[in-house]
Amino acid sequence: MSLLVIGSVAFDAIDTPFGSTGKIVGGAASYISLATTLLHDKVGLVAVVGEDFDFDFVDDLKRRGVDVEGLQIKAGEKSFFWHGKYHMDMNSRDTLVTELNVLGDFDPIVPQSWQQPEYVMLGNLSPQVQMTTLNRLTQKPKLVVLDTMNFWMDIALDDLKAVLAKVDVLTINDEEARQLSGEYSLVKAARVIRAMGPHTLIIKKGEHGALLFGGSDEIFFCPALPLEDVFDPTGAGDTFAGGFIGYLASVGRTDFEAMKMAIVYGSAMASFCVEQFGTTKLASITRDELNGRLAQFKALMSV
Amino acid sequence: MSLLVIGSVAFDAIDTPFGSTGKIVGGAASYISLATTLLHDKVGLVAVVGEDFDFDFVDDLKRRGVDVEGLQIKAGEKSFFWHGKYHMDMNSRDTLVTELNVLGDFDPIVPQSWQQPEYVMLGNLSPQVQMTTLNRLTQKPKLVVLDTMNFWMDIALDDLKAVLAKVDVLTINDEEARQLSGEYSLVKAARVIRAMGPHTLIIKKGEHGALLFGGSDEIFFCPALPLEDVFDPTGAGDTFAGGFIGYLASVGRTDFEAMKMAIVYGSAMASFCVEQFGTTKLASITRDELNGRLAQFKALMSV
Repeated sequence: MSLLVIGSVAFDAIDTPFGSTGKIVGGAASYISLATTLLHDKVGLVAVVGEDFDFDFVDDLKRRGVDVEGLQIKAGEKSFFWHGKYHMDMNSRDTLVTELNVLGDFDPIVPQSWQQPEYVMLGNLSPQVQMTTLNRLTQKPKLVVLDTMNFWMDIALDDLKAVLAKVDVLTINDEEARQLSGEYSLVKAARVIRAMGPHTLIIKKGEHGALLFGGSDEIFFCPALPLEDVFDPTGAGDTFAGGFIGYLASVGRTDFEAMKMAIVYGSAMASFCVEQFGTTKLASITRDELNGRLAQFKALMSV
Repeated sequence: MSLLVIGSVAFDAIDTPFGSTGKIVGGAASYISLATTLLHDKVGLVAVVGEDFDFDFVDDLKRRGVDVEGLQIKAGEKSFFWHGKYHMDMNSRDTLVTELNVLGDFDPIVPQSWQQPEYVMLGNLSPQVQMTTLNRLTQKPKLVVLDTMNFWMDIALDDLKAVLAKVDVLTINDEEARQLSGEYSLVKAARVIRAMGPHTLIIKKGEHGALLFGGSDEIFFCPALPLEDVFDPTGAGDTFAGGFIGYLASVGRTDFEAMKMAIVYGSAMASFCVEQFGTTKLASITRDELNGRLAQFKALMSV
């Protein structure tokens, strides 16, 4: 099952109470595609970087089997850059710097060989770019998952609603679900949002786990693994999404039961992501380590 | 298995964004003992009220099989009274009025027939009163569960630590676990707190579920049931504790596996509690309704 990933591939600089990074590789599609490679081997990436990017990272993606034909490299331009600072609780953060650079006029060109993907992961980007990507596909995918954030609800709500009408699964956090629906109760929020288009809604609650609303009014909850230390939450939501869709593509399913297991995979992946800065930990894990963590989730959830 | 419950039996007045109550029955031991009666039939109550109390509520407890011989009624005195106001998110609240009244000099007299209980639930009260209660038992119980709150950590930490050394299970919320342990990570907090005495720690996270730390470094997580409406969170933690120990007393077990199931029972009970003001809903549920809700938890958690 072919899996197309689109999103930012970028530089981050991250300050936490436990230390700071210089410029390191970040961006939604970096985390998503890395996460998928542990589960699935037919992944294509559509993204844009400047000539300043870290091409060792791109080589690593290639070695892991990601098709990077759709990665545009803009000569004379700089990659998207985000600098953020986490507070002591590691849940809230301030943005110190955002430089759009190549992302400012990103035209998501989908290579011909990737215009009929079976699974599509639209990472957090402007809803217009997400919509353009969908419009460039020549066949309806089996499953389209969209991730977004409050920023787009604030400045591009109509565009967001337009693309939501065309996707199968939406992943947002609890505050975003409340903002998008106007409902405080997440049960009511899910009903409102599922009426906007996506038949399935995933509400990410960070350290408090994730809720899956789908099927015929079914709900599933997956906890986050309680960890000794959370080092850097950056990319955890993207890694979660990558694990989620990577699992589904690997088993070729889109039913609610498969999605429940996919959420456990996504949560297991995300639990690795936060243990080191940036993509470091995610790039190092083995299938055995993943299996070990899946067993921890089983123990955590089984009664 | 005999189950002794001690805690406040009192009046509350509750303001929420959805309405206000006048004086209604509240108090930790009211919620705890009501919750236990749906699961267990050998429950004794030690508490104190003034002559102003609502004795219909006491009659109802009696009808449900609670032995109220240990309920002291102080002539010419008034019952404990708490008036609180919830904010829009229903998670945070302000205390508007606290009148200690009879609770100010509460001497927890344990009737002779209740001095050898097998299970003991020490509801939220001053650690000194909790300790006095334990000292008045003439035989070591199978299981002692203690609930407390940040207030006692602020003003009576040494007393609290003294009684913690004598209990098996502690239930507190996540912020209290952080305060008591000085650790932000709940995994580290659990290690510190379990070294203080209780072999098992339950961290209550309200709408985000509950964590159980016990056995040989095992962790179990039970979600809260996502609800259409949360009407009044008052007493949810007490109801949870009542369901927890009520289940354990009913099956006569104290092992980790039984505690996992007990947490699901506690969470199911608490999910009823918040759906109406005060003890109203809790007093009306049937065993069939409870079974229905337990099935909802199973669906929510099973992968």
